[in-house]
Amino acid sequence: MQKIRLGIVGYGNLGRGVQLAATQNPDMEVVAVFTRRDPASVNTVIPVKVEKYESMRDYVGKVDVMILCGGSATDLPVQSVEIIRMFNTVDSFDTHAKIPAYYEALNKEGKASGKLGAMSIGWDPGLFSLARIYFGAALNEGSTYTFWGKGVSQGHSDAIRRVEGVLDARQYTVPVESALQRVRSGENPQLSTREKHTRECYVVAKEGADLKRIEKEIKEMPNYFADYDTTVHFISEEELKKNHSGIPHGGLVIRSGKSAADNKFLMEFSLKLDSNPEFTSSILVAYARAVYRMHAEGKCGAVTAFDIAPKYLSLLSEEEQRKQLL
Amino acid sequence: MQKIRLGIVGYGNLGRGVQLAATQNPDMEVVAVFTRRDPASVNTVIPVKVEKYESMRDYVGKVDVMILCGGSATDLPVQSVEIIRMFNTVDSFDTHAKIPAYYEALNKEGKASGKLGAMSIGWDPGLFSLARIYFGAALNEGSTYTFWGKGVSQGHSDAIRRVEGVLDARQYTVPVESALQRVRSGENPQLSTREKHTRECYVVAKEGADLKRIEKEIKEMPNYFADYDTTVHFISEEELKKNHSGIPHGGLVIRSGKSAADNKFLMEFSLKLDSNPEFTSSILVAYARAVYRMHAEGKCGAVTAFDIAPKYLSLLSEEEQRKQLL
Repeated sequence: MQKIRLGIVGYGNLGRGVQLAATQNPDMEVVAVFTRRDPASVNTVIPVKVEKYESMRDYVGKVDVMILCGGSATDLPVQSVEIIRMFNTVDSFDTHAKIPAYYEALNKEGKASGKLGAMSIGWDPGLFSLARIYFGAALNEGSTYTFWGKGVSQGHSDAIRRVEGVLDARQYTVPVESALQRVRSGENPQLSTREKHTRECYVVAKEGADLKRIEKEIKEMPNYFADYDTTVHFISEEELKKNHSGIPHGGLVIRSGKSAADNKFLMEFSLKLDSNPEFTSSILVAYARAVYRMHAEGKCGAVTAFDIAPKYLSLLSEEEQRKQLL
Repeated sequence: MQKIRLGIVGYGNLGRGVQLAATQNPDMEVVAVFTRRDPASVNTVIPVKVEKYESMRDYVGKVDVMILCGGSATDLPVQSVEIIRMFNTVDSFDTHAKIPAYYEALNKEGKASGKLGAMSIGWDPGLFSLARIYFGAALNEGSTYTFWGKGVSQGHSDAIRRVEGVLDARQYTVPVESALQRVRSGENPQLSTREKHTRECYVVAKEGADLKRIEKEIKEMPNYFADYDTTVHFISEEELKKNHSGIPHGGLVIRSGKSAADNKFLMEFSLKLDSNPEFTSSILVAYARAVYRMHAEGKCGAVTAFDIAPKYLSLLSEEEQRKQLL
């Protein structure tokens, strides 16, 4: 069996995760990592060729799918449209407000080059989006709720680190248990931002810093914390390293609805993840399989998880799927 | 907007549920119910034309999708291949061992007639199958577990009713809480049939019947009860009517796995349903939308939930899906 040849673009937590996940999928192989750093400075978790970003064009015909592991803010909007001119792609673009524009740009370039790009792949957007669309279709009258956590938000952790006097920080997003219970009871509540999640911050302050001021600045930070009940714990650098070095995450999608005869239904999808980036990576690899197969059938342009039939994701043949999984 | 015109074939709990669910989907209308009983004897929950099964051919061009609401044992294997010669179909065929042969037969007739049939639609097979394929693809190394209940098993209730001296009965399948906990802990246990589910039976005995013998016959019944820890409660007819007249069901699909770096992941999908047939019906209606759309794109033959991209199920346009659900 000819393996699906992957390229990894960008080698942070996500790129490392993709390399690891590929080893768990016997139909995959990683051909090379592409980086904008000095290739010699990149230490891969498994030995593999590390190339300059610009060398990618030399791999046309040698890589079936490029998995884009850069960030949504600046990397992906530039890289996706460049790379789809040469390769099929998978990415985890997650800036929600910019998804329509991103889709249009990627779709246009893909249609022009004859390549296929799967965008916004991962668990949210991704598997959670799938839960939202399947649940909504299965039960047209109802309410869908998404909760995140307990898990580390990198964006919120970074925001705390920018506060003067802060050395390091870790922020956990936590769903409010009583809100979950209200949703599960079928009450279909209207929940405010504050009612759905709390924010727990573990902060290492510089010596002599004004802790009261730091706490106040965090709690009042607009967009990030002002709309939430926020708890700030000051801890030592050692404690942060010891107890908060992982990147766990998770969450739930719940739909509560009823039939026209007033019978109640509850649908719930939940994730508990020891490592957010390693789980996301594992999904990216499965979608690389789908992209490879759909492109082989002649599909090009941009697709999201909504456009991809589940059969394309599975290692099993369609006959095996019906026999073993249906 | 032209509505999708549905026909309902067979009018039991499922057919009634489809009629109800169609009222919750503004793009659907039910044109007629087809029955092998005397049409005059069928009381529909909402007024609609009731026709003889044989009159179906007069509706060619007037019905877009027939939803087959008969049983898997004898109705569907005969009806599906007959009806797909004239109409697109959706069915809930769930005799697991016969799925491959059923697929082949339906696919052959559909390819010949140019119609499309979605088979084995519902929650299991159906939504649970989707959880199994998505979870397995997202996490190639791991174990998937399916639990059913707490809910009424019609087949097991019927089996009890066939025991001599039994007037009526209701059987609940119940997942074993300790097994669920072991799975959720990431232990990846090998679970026997007995370890996964218990069976609770509520039995109305005829006056003067030998209760000890009835209980023994139930508990030792091969296939149905012998492999389970079974509890038998004798109750009055009034109590059965009062407390056990609903048809609730539900269940869970859980996948527990890990990354190549040994980080653990848990994926869980669960359903709690006040009415099993009304929920199944609601899914059948959503898949009728998918069948209508895919057939309009030229697709014919047989498909399962695995072959249908989620976008086809949603009432929303693809742009709205990306904006609101992704």
